[in-house]
Amino acid sequence: MDDDISNPLPTRLGKEELYDFDTRGFILKEGFVKPEETDGILAALEPLWQQEGGSGLLFRAPVFETDLPFFRNMALRVAAESGVYDTINQPFRLIESYALRRAGGSLQALHNGRSNKNESAFGASNRAMWRDHTYHDGLLHCMMVKALVYLSDVTALEDGPFVVVEGSHKANFPFPIPLSRMKKGAGLDRPGTSPVYARTGDLLLLNEALTHGSLPKTSPGDRTFIAFSFAPSFVSNYRKLAKGSHSLSEMGFRE
Amino acid sequence: MDDDISNPLPTRLGKEELYDFDTRGFILKEGFVKPEETDGILAALEPLWQQEGGSGLLFRAPVFETDLPFFRNMALRVAAESGVYDTINQPFRLIESYALRRAGGSLQALHNGRSNKNESAFGASNRAMWRDHTYHDGLLHCMMVKALVYLSDVTALEDGPFVVVEGSHKANFPFPIPLSRMKKGAGLDRPGTSPVYARTGDLLLLNEALTHGSLPKTSPGDRTFIAFSFAPSFVSNYRKLAKGSHSLSEMGFRE
Amino acid sequence: MDDDISNPLPTRLGKEELYDFDTRGFILKEGFVKPEETDGILAALEPLWQQEGGSGLLFRAPVFETDLPFFRNMALRVAAESGVYDTINQPFRLIESYALRRAGGSLQALHNGRSNKNESAFGASNRAMWRDHTYHDGLLHCMMVKALVYLSDVTALEDGPFVVVEGSHKANFPFPIPLSRMKKGAGLDRPGTSPVYARTGDLLLLNEALTHGSLPKTSPGDRTFIAFSFAPSFVSNYRKLAKGSHSLSEMGFRE
Amino acid sequence: MDDDISNPLPTRLGKEELYDFDTRGFILKEGFVKPEETDGILAALEPLWQQEGGSGLLFRAPVFETDLPFFRNMALRVAAESGVYDTINQPFRLIESYALRRAGGSLQALHNGRSNKNESAFGASNRAMWRDHTYHDGLLHCMMVKALVYLSDVTALEDGPFVVVEGSHKANFPFPIPLSRMKKGAGLDRPGTSPVYARTGDLLLLNEALTHGSLPKTSPGDRTFIAFSFAPSFVSNYRKLAKGSHSLSEMGFRE
Repeated sequence: MDDDISNPLPTRLGKEELYDFDTRGFILKEGFVKPEETDGILAALEPLWQQEGGSGLLFRAPVFETDLPFFRNMALRVAAESGVYDTINQPFRLIESYALRRAGGSLQALHNGRSNKNESAFGASNRAMWRDHTYHDGLLHCMMVKALVYLSDVTALEDGPFVVVEGSHKANFPFPIPLSRMKKGAGLDRPGTSPVYARTGDLLLLNEALTHGSLPKTSPGDRTFIAFSFAPSFVSNYRKLAKGSHSLSEMGFRE
Repeated sequence: MDDDISNPLPTRLGKEELYDFDTRGFILKEGFVKPEETDGILAALEPLWQQEGGSGLLFRAPVFETDLPFFRNMALRVAAESGVYDTINQPFRLIESYALRRAGGSLQALHNGRSNKNESAFGASNRAMWRDHTYHDGLLHCMMVKALVYLSDVTALEDGPFVVVEGSHKANFPFPIPLSRMKKGAGLDRPGTSPVYARTGDLLLLNEALTHGSLPKTSPGDRTFIAFSFAPSFVSNYRKLAKGSHSLSEMGFRE
Repeated sequence: MDDDISNPLPTRLGKEELYDFDTRGFILKEGFVKPEETDGILAALEPLWQQEGGSGLLFRAPVFETDLPFFRNMALRVAAESGVYDTINQPFRLIESYALRRAGGSLQALHNGRSNKNESAFGASNRAMWRDHTYHDGLLHCMMVKALVYLSDVTALEDGPFVVVEGSHKANFPFPIPLSRMKKGAGLDRPGTSPVYARTGDLLLLNEALTHGSLPKTSPGDRTFIAFSFAPSFVSNYRKLAKGSHSLSEMGFRE
Repeated sequence: MDDDISNPLPTRLGKEELYDFDTRGFILKEGFVKPEETDGILAALEPLWQQEGGSGLLFRAPVFETDLPFFRNMALRVAAESGVYDTINQPFRLIESYALRRAGGSLQALHNGRSNKNESAFGASNRAMWRDHTYHDGLLHCMMVKALVYLSDVTALEDGPFVVVEGSHKANFPFPIPLSRMKKGAGLDRPGTSPVYARTGDLLLLNEALTHGSLPKTSPGDRTFIAFSFAPSFVSNYRKLAKGSHSLSEMGFRE
């Protein structure tokens, strides 16, 4: 993954896209990957799926460290053409990449949000620095953006669409539902939480400061996407911070 | 360096210290290390000094990766008692540590600043994310703080004191002197740039967003300190980003 | 209007309301006025209506300076119970009050927004101070909030509902449609612009930094509300700044 | 005072002045008024002085409402040439003007500050909106700036110079000295509080969010200046908010 990212050439976001990413926290790039290519991608992912959690409904494929030329080329295209340059506006790195597949019945609880509780070794804060962001002189400076490339259609409520909490990427107050209840799915149907629909091949670029999740999938078939997470170059690879370990040189994230 | 940092126990900053660190960008903790201990520290550093640059006046000792119990204990004390908790307010890591020795004639040009030009692979921005900082609900959130433990007295202009540009850690406009001239020492005597004096054993805690440097040392003897840099846990070890390399997974910093 | 506002006693917003007002820029208080009272209010307004513009579809009733006990009591209740305290968090004043009636066919173009062009005598800025707002230590500080008390049902698209541009009260970039086209109704159907429905007696509290408007009313009957605008006490009564006059002591607003 | 302010023509601040006003909260314009003119100004003020407070050491001359051509011309020049345009960047007004004369022994306690307690009818906040300020896209947006034109030399500590608390115009925490003690002069000699010297005819432009005061004057002679306060056009004339009166239409300021 050490190719020069100037190839393919970076493209800039348009005025409408910049306004929308700033105010809504996400944009949808329709037809980023040709639908006919997605069959090949799904076939390449096939041997990589690993079951996650105990539900039997969720599968993850780690593509970050693979050297499959497929994913390497896609990562370079995503970095260049999805808006990562215009939303980070600093030297950046790919810090995480994986594919996710959900079968019927699975949902993803609401998580993240600019002002949610950030537990630490020494107390708690309602501002998580790893997903904070600012604006200066016409440029956005996000600490983490994620690009999702859809490998299946999610065009109705039954398909378990991605949902975002309106304005949560700039929230000053904590989300008003306790974390314990959020983790069980509370808030997914709250006013101000709305679905984002996408078709196979569409790319969703997301400010990771958004509170987001996905509705239960009840229609037949799988719901699959590949995710690429980008951050300023000084940020280490994404991994959760182990609870209870506060080593001076340990590295990690905690929500 | 994998001891639990809860030992020694963290201490909080007082109201005056919090106000001063927020408004001025630094605080001085007098007598952090007993002067009588500093002889031992200097002796331990003796075999580690490496000449830096071509001037013959500047020496650096890399103490980050050493397992000298001396430095490990000092790093733990600095982390716990100098204000790192209260200025980062997130899980944090030690990302850099070194000692620096300047001989007569040496100066350090002004550098950093919240709004100085941040060159990147794809353009330029006047906001460097690795030294940005914010405040929320009574808590400071700095992306990088540096603690300097003084091993020599710097009590007069001739001793080459540390200088800070007043308010530069919250500057909105770029520093009004071109980088090429700053690098040659311009601005060190500008109104609004003022010296910070310290004695052997004092600790200076610094918001790395400050524009700072040090005046020429013209008095006899060396000017020596040990530096410890702390950042949120998701930040990688400090190193400069190589120019010309834009690998998708490269990690680093650039000023 | 010189009664003490501590009577009726102020009530605070709940956690959900604070989160929503902060992230969405508005909240709806259902049943703020009993529907049976609204007949009396409409009757009191009857002699006050004045036609506005040349369309014959829009009428305004100036209630700010009246001493009708009706409106005085309502203004006191709105100030105390709609969230004005919790969204300004400073000494405040009523700076404007009027009723508005739209007949079928009328719409209100999108206007306001935190980052729209703010023309002035000497240039232009994308930040209008009279509708700016901030947050500090758990408190919102809005420069202008407006409470609308609905005197008719607006429960379907045909009723010409109020629309808001999601996140526009915290926008950093200007709205991406030119002002000349906005004034003709452009943008009302843009993704991210959504309707807010209300019933007779409901109160809508609005951050005036939101880009907002109303859809065309095509259903029978009138669409009527009373508006109360509040601002910090040092703000003068609302009126548009005359173009071309730049007197040093002139007072006013300009969008 | 209803002349067009485009005459004299506005001049812009330089890059150094903008940086300094932003980071330090003030700039000094040397020789704004020719020293030989100041005799005439002092003579014109002579009949206007009114004793203030019970000390017999402080005198105020209200020049805001006068139509003395002297002051009208000076107000127009100050508005155009001292940096008011570049620090408000909105349509603005003159909201206050007065001359102040201190005799030997008089001091002015520290007051203002962006984060000091702002008492109101309904609670307290650590952010006073009437002196808040922000920055957007290269432009400063101050809610109140004050220009002081010096009519006497203040070039030594004995002359009772103006003092500013470094960085206080961007403070997040309240000033760490209780208001009751500040009012008695505490904090004037605190580290981080520094004097600003000026000569007869110099103009000091000040962000009113700064915590500032003046040291005791112990040298012979008077210390005299004229002050002009500017604010965005929607702000009413400066006056303190009466305690205990919470009329819905009352207008005013409170510290």
